[in-house]
Amino acid sequence: MKIRVFVSLKDGVLDPQGKAVGHALESLGFKGVGEVRVNRVIELDVAAQDNAAALAEGEAMARALLANEVIEDFSVEVAA
Amino acid sequence: MKIRVFVSLKDGVLDPQGKAVGHALESLGFKGVGEVRVNRVIELDVAAQDNAAALAEGEAMARALLANEVIEDFSVEVAA
Repeated sequence: MKIRVFVSLKDGVLDPQGKAVGHALESLGFKGVGEVRVNRVIELDVAAQDNAAALAEGEAMARALLANEVIEDFSVEVAA
Repeated sequence: MKIRVFVSLKDGVLDPQGKAVGHALESLGFKGVGEVRVNRVIELDVAAQDNAAALAEGEAMARALLANEVIEDFSVEVAA
């Protein structure tokens, strides 16, 4: 079963990579670019039997490794 | 208007970061982890008037900067 774990910086945490992308887009001629955030999506194949088990495993993985909960939020979904 | 640009490695392109995450999960005790891919999502505020314009601008940004089309695919969506 395939799941996706979305990991994003919490609101208020500075995203230097996003800032750099924003500046680069402006210098390439894109006008009116506001805030830019660069986040991660981890796609995993897991052996879970059903959706609930897959989501629980994804959440455990996020807490253990994939997300730094001090500065990052995460969400888990089952891929179609 | 807020858009999201999803950037993922094309099928068949090795993802060393994903492999490392997979090995780390196994050594943390998660069993049955199959393929792992680590992708990017860039969230941007753009000044476009409507959805179609926002999607077009996102696609132009992806082609110009956000994705390396030699090895990466991308998709653009308007955030709710």
